[in-house]
Amino acid sequence: MPFRGTPPCVGILGGGQLARMTALAGWPMGVNFLQLAPQAEVAGGIVETVTAPFDDEAALRAFAERVDVVTFESENVPVATAEFLGEFVPVRPGPRALAAAGNRWTEKDLFSELEIPTTRYVKVASADDLKGALEIVGLPAVAKMRRLGYDGRGQLVCRTADELLSAFDRLGGVPLLVEQWIPFDREVSIVGVRAADGTVRCYTPSENIHEQGILRASLAPAPDLAPALVETAGDYLRRIMAALDYVGVIALEMFQHGGALLANEIAPRVHNTGHWTIEGAVTSQFENHVRAIVGWPLGSTAHLGHSVMLNVIGDTPSHPEILAMDDVHVHAYGKSARPGRKLGHLTVLVGSPAEGRRRLDELRRIVSGA
Amino acid sequence: MPFRGTPPCVGILGGGQLARMTALAGWPMGVNFLQLAPQAEVAGGIVETVTAPFDDEAALRAFAERVDVVTFESENVPVATAEFLGEFVPVRPGPRALAAAGNRWTEKDLFSELEIPTTRYVKVASADDLKGALEIVGLPAVAKMRRLGYDGRGQLVCRTADELLSAFDRLGGVPLLVEQWIPFDREVSIVGVRAADGTVRCYTPSENIHEQGILRASLAPAPDLAPALVETAGDYLRRIMAALDYVGVIALEMFQHGGALLANEIAPRVHNTGHWTIEGAVTSQFENHVRAIVGWPLGSTAHLGHSVMLNVIGDTPSHPEILAMDDVHVHAYGKSARPGRKLGHLTVLVGSPAEGRRRLDELRRIVSGA
Repeated sequence: MPFRGTPPCVGILGGGQLARMTALAGWPMGVNFLQLAPQAEVAGGIVETVTAPFDDEAALRAFAERVDVVTFESENVPVATAEFLGEFVPVRPGPRALAAAGNRWTEKDLFSELEIPTTRYVKVASADDLKGALEIVGLPAVAKMRRLGYDGRGQLVCRTADELLSAFDRLGGVPLLVEQWIPFDREVSIVGVRAADGTVRCYTPSENIHEQGILRASLAPAPDLAPALVETAGDYLRRIMAALDYVGVIALEMFQHGGALLANEIAPRVHNTGHWTIEGAVTSQFENHVRAIVGWPLGSTAHLGHSVMLNVIGDTPSHPEILAMDDVHVHAYGKSARPGRKLGHLTVLVGSPAEGRRRLDELRRIVSGA
Repeated sequence: MPFRGTPPCVGILGGGQLARMTALAGWPMGVNFLQLAPQAEVAGGIVETVTAPFDDEAALRAFAERVDVVTFESENVPVATAEFLGEFVPVRPGPRALAAAGNRWTEKDLFSELEIPTTRYVKVASADDLKGALEIVGLPAVAKMRRLGYDGRGQLVCRTADELLSAFDRLGGVPLLVEQWIPFDREVSIVGVRAADGTVRCYTPSENIHEQGILRASLAPAPDLAPALVETAGDYLRRIMAALDYVGVIALEMFQHGGALLANEIAPRVHNTGHWTIEGAVTSQFENHVRAIVGWPLGSTAHLGHSVMLNVIGDTPSHPEILAMDDVHVHAYGKSARPGRKLGHLTVLVGSPAEGRRRLDELRRIVSGA
């Protein structure tokens, strides 16, 4: 019992780096954590873990008895798991947000319903639907699996009609979303948080750089993003949070195309493009997620200077080499190396966007060993 | 195994909040932790703990086998424990620093030897020595137990000859240090870190406010501390670190008396007057301690803005009330409430020393419930 009253215990579904960093942000406030994860997913091993599949009802029931609130670190947690746990303990964000975000069809429909600009799209349930999709969406197009896609997995960019018409089979014969591929200027995302009482705070949007479908780096604030677009991004996120009666941290990824922002996808959780907030904002996205789901007031989302975040993927340089850059913050997730795997991230706070790009180049040279 | 190579495991002697915050700073870098503590001392329970007394050789040997380096969170760890462990694994800082700092006689002799100004003092081994002490030190005087004093325990301020002459008996008949009591303007401390290769970094000195012998608050940088005195403080600390061939974080507490700084005591560990560095410096004292003892390069000790740190002692207000001040950082140690016990601390970053004092007053009103 730290401060007055019993500290809450947060249950997290999933045991990767997002759960780990959530615990690291909540422990200083005296919050306790318990995570439930299939064995293979556990990162690091600093959070007490119940090892069980997400459909083990006995394990879920026992888990629910030990925690005050449940959250999740991935939209790929089954909605049924969240719903089952919701009978025993509050699940935040709720199963509805999980359902909306874990499915590209409902996600796109949500954008349309809320009049948030997005790319043209068609739902494809069979190979026969692809011809209609070609007509409506045009080329190039992107075919994405309706579920379980992340970090660029489960999607195909189609530049020819043949490529698009074969996409259903090539993606394994599962339901798809086919959408317009646009030559966007850059990807921008915004992370926000909503408290149980409806209070909302947004972080400054970041510019995100992807490589092979995986987030490689973020710059926050997004350099040269017009104040009107910062407002617009926050407005879109607020509409989404209100519609989902959301509690916790959420991210919205968008394409910037000239003066427009097109919603791409939402992540109902703490997000890789918000990792810069650990050092770069007054209150990190992880701390604010914990504050929101346990029912505490939110912390300030104001940013401090300009942040650069670089993901460490697959293989990595040595610690001393990175740490010798004395203002770089190292975050290692305690995971074993594997090609394409996010093993950690680096953050540095700088004085200007130009310095940010320069430091990013420098960090990339060290991380890539070039 | 996060980044390349096997991450080191740090063994910590002691299981209080300093061990806890050290682990919270090291985990993000992928470092592992194991602490050894007598049961009563464990705070929170987030670090794996071996429960054993500090003189249990079998337990110490087994502990040493599981870690790559040993450190301690208190100068009250027996020197014999550090020496015993040192036969199996590096102990940083070394037993010599522990011996020097855990004993007020050797501490004062170290200041004298290094020509660091300090108050006049006399070593008192028996009641008979007190008359000589009275002559040399004068009145008022402070009588302090040679060992095991902290947070104002084990010391008496003596304003009359009778008070001083009875101090030996009143403090339990143990060896004492008797020193001049000076009407200092304020207490200032400096925290620094030394790497295994001799590289040194110092944080900006802080002004510290004590109440009933316990640290209540710190302001960093110390408001209006002349740049020459900032230099002087760093110079004193460098002399001490070099003399002890120190590795890790160390703190030096001083009295400011006009334009002079008088060394009061050293703490061979992360220190309460350096807690502001978690949010207020590029690299916290905890992270730099870990970097130093595992042999990694040090991080920048530059400060960000002006920090205010308030200890939460004995009893506390509710979390939501504190967190509603949206830029306040809450640190709860997971300890049960007890009068005079440090249960946590609060930090806020502000733009000026004047704002710092204003926010400190505001925080104190909330914490004291007034």
